[in-house]
Amino acid sequence: MILFKGRYLSLITISCVLLFAFKNEERTSPYPYKNPKLSVDERVKDLLSRMTLKEKILQLDMFWGKEVADSTGHETKEYSAKKTAAILGDTGIGSVHDLYPLTADITNKIQKYALENTRLGIPVLFIEEGLHGYSSKGSTSFPIPLQMSAAWDTALVYKAGRVIATETRAHGVNMILGPVLCLPHDPRWGRVEETFGEDPYLDALNGVAMVKGLQGKRLSDNDAVVAEPKHFSVHGIPEAGSNTAPVNIGEREERSTYLYVFERAVKEGGAKGIMAAYSEIDGIPCVDNKWLLTDVLRKEWGFDGFVLSDLGAIKMSLESHAIASSVSDALAQTFNAGLNMQFYDFDHKLFMTSVEQAIKDKKLSEAQLNKTVGEVLRVKFLLGLFDNPYILNDRVSKVFHSSESQDLALKIAQESICLLKNDDVLPLKANQSIAVLGPLAKSTYLGGYSNTEDKAISVLEGLQQRAGSSAKISFEPGYSMEKDQGDLLQKAVNLAKASDVAIVVLGEDLSIVGEGKDRAHLDLDENQMELVRAVKATAKPVVVVLENGRPLTINWIAKNIPAIVESWFGGEKNGLAIADVLLGNVNPSGKLPMTFPRSLGQVPFYYNHKPTSYHRYVDEQSTPLYAFGHGLSYTKFEYSDLSFDKPKIAADETIEVSLNVKNTGPVAGAEVVQVYVRDVVSSVTTPVMALKGFHKVMLKPGETSVIRFKLGPEHLSLWNKSMKRVVEPGEFKIMVGSASDDIRLNGSFQVIK
Amino acid sequence: MILFKGRYLSLITISCVLLFAFKNEERTSPYPYKNPKLSVDERVKDLLSRMTLKEKILQLDMFWGKEVADSTGHETKEYSAKKTAAILGDTGIGSVHDLYPLTADITNKIQKYALENTRLGIPVLFIEEGLHGYSSKGSTSFPIPLQMSAAWDTALVYKAGRVIATETRAHGVNMILGPVLCLPHDPRWGRVEETFGEDPYLDALNGVAMVKGLQGKRLSDNDAVVAEPKHFSVHGIPEAGSNTAPVNIGEREERSTYLYVFERAVKEGGAKGIMAAYSEIDGIPCVDNKWLLTDVLRKEWGFDGFVLSDLGAIKMSLESHAIASSVSDALAQTFNAGLNMQFYDFDHKLFMTSVEQAIKDKKLSEAQLNKTVGEVLRVKFLLGLFDNPYILNDRVSKVFHSSESQDLALKIAQESICLLKNDDVLPLKANQSIAVLGPLAKSTYLGGYSNTEDKAISVLEGLQQRAGSSAKISFEPGYSMEKDQGDLLQKAVNLAKASDVAIVVLGEDLSIVGEGKDRAHLDLDENQMELVRAVKATAKPVVVVLENGRPLTINWIAKNIPAIVESWFGGEKNGLAIADVLLGNVNPSGKLPMTFPRSLGQVPFYYNHKPTSYHRYVDEQSTPLYAFGHGLSYTKFEYSDLSFDKPKIAADETIEVSLNVKNTGPVAGAEVVQVYVRDVVSSVTTPVMALKGFHKVMLKPGETSVIRFKLGPEHLSLWNKSMKRVVEPGEFKIMVGSASDDIRLNGSFQVIK
Repeated sequence: MILFKGRYLSLITISCVLLFAFKNEERTSPYPYKNPKLSVDERVKDLLSRMTLKEKILQLDMFWGKEVADSTGHETKEYSAKKTAAILGDTGIGSVHDLYPLTADITNKIQKYALENTRLGIPVLFIEEGLHGYSSKGSTSFPIPLQMSAAWDTALVYKAGRVIATETRAHGVNMILGPVLCLPHDPRWGRVEETFGEDPYLDALNGVAMVKGLQGKRLSDNDAVVAEPKHFSVHGIPEAGSNTAPVNIGEREERSTYLYVFERAVKEGGAKGIMAAYSEIDGIPCVDNKWLLTDVLRKEWGFDGFVLSDLGAIKMSLESHAIASSVSDALAQTFNAGLNMQFYDFDHKLFMTSVEQAIKDKKLSEAQLNKTVGEVLRVKFLLGLFDNPYILNDRVSKVFHSSESQDLALKIAQESICLLKNDDVLPLKANQSIAVLGPLAKSTYLGGYSNTEDKAISVLEGLQQRAGSSAKISFEPGYSMEKDQGDLLQKAVNLAKASDVAIVVLGEDLSIVGEGKDRAHLDLDENQMELVRAVKATAKPVVVVLENGRPLTINWIAKNIPAIVESWFGGEKNGLAIADVLLGNVNPSGKLPMTFPRSLGQVPFYYNHKPTSYHRYVDEQSTPLYAFGHGLSYTKFEYSDLSFDKPKIAADETIEVSLNVKNTGPVAGAEVVQVYVRDVVSSVTTPVMALKGFHKVMLKPGETSVIRFKLGPEHLSLWNKSMKRVVEPGEFKIMVGSASDDIRLNGSFQVIK
Repeated sequence: MILFKGRYLSLITISCVLLFAFKNEERTSPYPYKNPKLSVDERVKDLLSRMTLKEKILQLDMFWGKEVADSTGHETKEYSAKKTAAILGDTGIGSVHDLYPLTADITNKIQKYALENTRLGIPVLFIEEGLHGYSSKGSTSFPIPLQMSAAWDTALVYKAGRVIATETRAHGVNMILGPVLCLPHDPRWGRVEETFGEDPYLDALNGVAMVKGLQGKRLSDNDAVVAEPKHFSVHGIPEAGSNTAPVNIGEREERSTYLYVFERAVKEGGAKGIMAAYSEIDGIPCVDNKWLLTDVLRKEWGFDGFVLSDLGAIKMSLESHAIASSVSDALAQTFNAGLNMQFYDFDHKLFMTSVEQAIKDKKLSEAQLNKTVGEVLRVKFLLGLFDNPYILNDRVSKVFHSSESQDLALKIAQESICLLKNDDVLPLKANQSIAVLGPLAKSTYLGGYSNTEDKAISVLEGLQQRAGSSAKISFEPGYSMEKDQGDLLQKAVNLAKASDVAIVVLGEDLSIVGEGKDRAHLDLDENQMELVRAVKATAKPVVVVLENGRPLTINWIAKNIPAIVESWFGGEKNGLAIADVLLGNVNPSGKLPMTFPRSLGQVPFYYNHKPTSYHRYVDEQSTPLYAFGHGLSYTKFEYSDLSFDKPKIAADETIEVSLNVKNTGPVAGAEVVQVYVRDVVSSVTTPVMALKGFHKVMLKPGETSVIRFKLGPEHLSLWNKSMKRVVEPGEFKIMVGSASDDIRLNGSFQVIK
């Protein structure tokens, strides 16, 4: 091979030079797709026209960070440029997820390779997790979404979204896999903690707030990321509460309740990403549902982002749903349905050859492929990755975990703790000796899809920090997760006896809550029940603090313990917020975003059920333990003067509802005024009551505020027998109150023809 | 009034004579509708043309027996001819339900009035209950339908239907409100006992058998009645297990599973009645669902009977579903949807004026009214009520509770008891002393919608009758339903200690099972658990006999008690059948028609779930306690030689599956050979396995039998994405076994294009 004749060598040299020249020209010449002055559509079209089949298919593929950047495995911090070059090669790739180590420097290096060393210079999309805090060390950690929702304050959710986006983009990461807009109707499901709770209206508003918070002003800004509402379209009602199980639902209920939340996230929030769910609905897996991913999402709602598979969801359509006969068939079906990118479903080589095969077999047309790829490229253009692909290295130190972000984390936790019961025990008197009991009092668990626990403050620490030197704070676990309990219980009882008040922290630990942690029982662990029963028997005042990610069946506690504080998983400032509520520094104002059933046998139990969902049993009450919207305060509020600006409206008009709320108690406090609507007679059945407005108002003692709500087609419409969304003439009942089971004012108005 | 002038008197006399002559002529002249030689359609058309609006509307109304015949209330046996005349008047009525006293003589008298004293002589339709025995004293009582289904022998169900029809018609009653063809997927629901269990195929075959049994050879025969499958279309999956709650389901699942059972009852069974369910499906109450009652039922399936409202279901659409603005509106909507007769929804006067109003308002057209009325009249013609309206008074004494019927009741009970567990305890050895424990051992409860308990034999009586004088049978209740338990438990323990074996009878009593008895907990009562734990602690051999109407969560018993006999509510011969199984006179062969979950948290848990219904929990196993199809025997069966008559078939062809079953044990016994099918890859998801054939075969020790099944489009089809029923090409896996979790033989064949 070294014995080339001169002329052969020359020929080779000339070829190489020509090739280099061609490639160089391709990179630097002002091709239309590189021109920021052209429209995104023009740029996408031009770029597509230049791409090879391989380059296109690679845009639909996601790569694990480890494959792209990480030299010796997940634990190292060494970046491997070789790996980047080997994976991106001359073609580039669609996206990278779960990059580690994750720094602006490394995303910049990878991006630089993509821009400068691949034939067309198509940037990489970096994707990470961040449901309640960017999932990278050193970021700010907020309460779990279920708890954020309990604040009933979308401005806080928006602000959390801004922090998450700012911290995320500071690493050069472009997209966050969230928010979760699944309405959970089943507390068995382990992912309840990731959601905004059971109500479509509350979820829709929180969803819009989080999407807007994440996406910022412009996606190309250095503090904005693509939001990706998930899991489209229904994941919160898996059969038997078991994650990814089939969803049993009809189209009207799907549209009225579940799709509604996504619709607002897309149309109003402008979300540019969507994740297709694992589940099947009525026999069709979501990733293969053209009606869902194309007809509804793109045609009806005008979605112009891209749809990602949930991790392995396309593979499921082959291996468990069994609706595809081969990988090629599975991929053709999902892309034809409207999905755009796989998520570790098939290895890259198999993915490539299988899509090529689908094209060859004409199961996937070139036109469909171009559409699918174009939708991914579109988002990369919107993010400005072609024009301004790098992030400044010093952004991290400037924006990560700022004191403002930390204050926000504390504020959200304070606003979202729910006081479930209080028989004159809380707030605690000053200078008492406090027994803090239960291993969870030391827990710093943050909930799923957030960052690590290094900065989190436990209940015990929070009390120690807040109670001051005058109070005596002592701790005993009371039980152990190990088999041998020794004298732990007795020590806890002794401590309670020796103290003025006992705070027993109960709930769920990491082993039973979160994704893949579905439960068939909702009771507290027997160790926990023994502890609380024994402490109660001491006759000392007892407060139960709950840390959990789903409604639990706590009948004994509700009956026997005088005060119950639902504090969920409250983010990095959790312990401080709980201490603030216990000590009265903060007047609790959180309201339950999900119904607490009395027993699992009542499930599903959501407040906005249909009129015939009676929950009548021979061995159980027909009411929940704690209703949706429930949450007590250290003060009292009086409602009065419900009025409407007109007695009747036309179907396309808006009516204004107003009322007064007065703080009639001794301390300042915030009330969440809740407006529920009932369509009295309708062509199809409608919920007994449905939240259509809420407003959190802070009132000083004696202060009154006028609260106004507007109700229009958005709030009054239903999906009729012809599956059209209409407002029907007739009476609408309005119920205003402090909880769904604590209605203070009733009124009604007419919609006329 | 007695001082009439001659000519006035003459005029009146003449008028009266003319009127009489007219009426007489109307009654006796050969109007076409009275001519049995004309077709039913011609007769209906002619009769309709002669009817007034009032007469028509009255045909759509049902009257309570008490209104029509009963002189001084429900407790008397005195018949009131005056009441009959007052109610039927000159117009007649649609139907009478719940007549009391109920004798052939009385139905004949009412019918005679209708035929001879109303203007057009339209007969009355008599309707009664009879899910597992005609609901009149002195009739034969069979096991509850759930138990009948556990026999896996449709010939027995057909025979029971024949007995029910024969006894019913002997009273002049023309229609039975059954069978219940709701597939229960939720054991919380109290009406599980009324169903044939969770499987569509088993239910469909039992449904067809019962419909054919009830309807006999010809409806006009004196041993045939109209069958009325209910509750159309879905009632077995009410939300949260609470009766009449909304049904959450999509059209494909509805058609594939729930409608399938009704479809066969209509198309193959020829049912002439259907009862519309209370429930709403996806926002539309069944009574108002035109797609269901007209498009599917009549147009797709060719149903030519009439549709009855479930008791008060139309009223629910007004008062709870709230989809109607007035009674008139509710009635117009339901009749337009395809319903034919109200069931005590509105009082008769309100019903009359409201339908008249609907006609006047043009919400209900005369054409629709004629169609609705005609469908009721059609059934009366088919029953021969115009031509042969009376029943011979001596039929009752000839056919009621015949020894053949009693033998059948015993046979069905024997065939349907399920041996859930047996660790060498059963059958009992001869001449032992037996402690019979638990109040349910004396229960003669028969289950809902049957007759009274006067003839029923309890477990205790059954054992006493069957065990012979050599065995010593003693009884202790062990607990009481009263608060004060006294020394009942200790006495039971003492008796167990003094005996060779203890039979503990546990389960459900009338207060917690049946319609309106939904449960939020599936555990046995704590009294019962204390009893069985204490008896177990005596170290004597223990057998638990269960009497219950739904699957219960019996984990402790399953783990700790060596033998469990599921005997349900076994009809009038229940105690004898149980004694026969316990003593080994009968080798048990029943198989569970419904899955027994380990805990309520696994619900819904049915064997033929979709592939992704994993039932994975952190705190519960993923398998049921006892699987669908499970049931042990005192002998053993060996399966071998699975073969197909061809390796592949076309989509419209049939394949024959054959195999050998051998009794390899020491005693004769019957095995239910079960064939399950899995469509390996399909365009929409399909169940992991689905029963498509079963055969009960009796084998002597050492005997082998060849079992053959045919599988064709009926068994292999699915509802595809275009909602068409098709057989798709590809592999079909065949699993043959003794239970859904005890598959002995596997094979597969291809369907080719």
